[in-house]
Amino acid sequence: MFMTEHLGDIPSFKLLETELSFAFLDIGPLAKGHALVIPKYHAEKLHEVPDEYLADALPIAKKIAIAQGVENYNILQNNGRIAHQEVDHVHFHVIPKPIASDEDGLVIGWPAKPQDKAELQKVFDEIKGRL
Amino acid sequence: MFMTEHLGDIPSFKLLETELSFAFLDIGPLAKGHALVIPKYHAEKLHEVPDEYLADALPIAKKIAIAQGVENYNILQNNGRIAHQEVDHVHFHVIPKPIASDEDGLVIGWPAKPQDKAELQKVFDEIKGRL
Repeated sequence: MFMTEHLGDIPSFKLLETELSFAFLDIGPLAKGHALVIPKYHAEKLHEVPDEYLADALPIAKKIAIAQGVENYNILQNNGRIAHQEVDHVHFHVIPKPIASDEDGLVIGWPAKPQDKAELQKVFDEIKGRL
Repeated sequence: MFMTEHLGDIPSFKLLETELSFAFLDIGPLAKGHALVIPKYHAEKLHEVPDEYLADALPIAKKIAIAQGVENYNILQNNGRIAHQEVDHVHFHVIPKPIASDEDGLVIGWPAKPQDKAELQKVFDEIKGRL
């Protein structure tokens, strides 16, 4: 299986393993302790992963966050190149944010725009109609 | 229960509900369709949420991503003010990234630093020792 082989390269940094997931230290960390939770099912994007694998990921992220011992951290999962995905197998980042600095941890930009209620209602009807 | 009351303010934008979670349209979206998945358990941070609630969140995020109909998107969950958390109840953002622009969707900065293997090994031993 793709990920098993690939991750075999860095076995010494495996933090956890369950039947459905692995967790590893990221070898190019944004901050000390930056880790990855990776489903043992090959899919590029989250919406292609079976629910049972998705259900397994966050309880592992929780264990890791506790073991990182930090109070501030981000959980991030990117889908697609323009959304910052660099490796084409679904992975969840658990990224400590030890200090309020653009030099350490995830840096987030938040270009929210005011929306009027009619506009939101239109988007809502569209998405709700597909659920 | 806290969230039910709070979220009662925007009932028209509720996309989904399960026994353990809600999903809503974000009323201050980063991009069209930006949604939130919210456990029906009050905790400020992910590591305080019981596993069953965590397990419920991502399968819902998946349904929403499919209904958003986009190929590029980010899943983000922030813990703590310096990690960009603004509301003190755990929530997962499902944020479409329709175009490669800092004007639309989540903007990500990635200050990764090269790490030597000895340094990574030290961090690994520390975290692994707490798991």
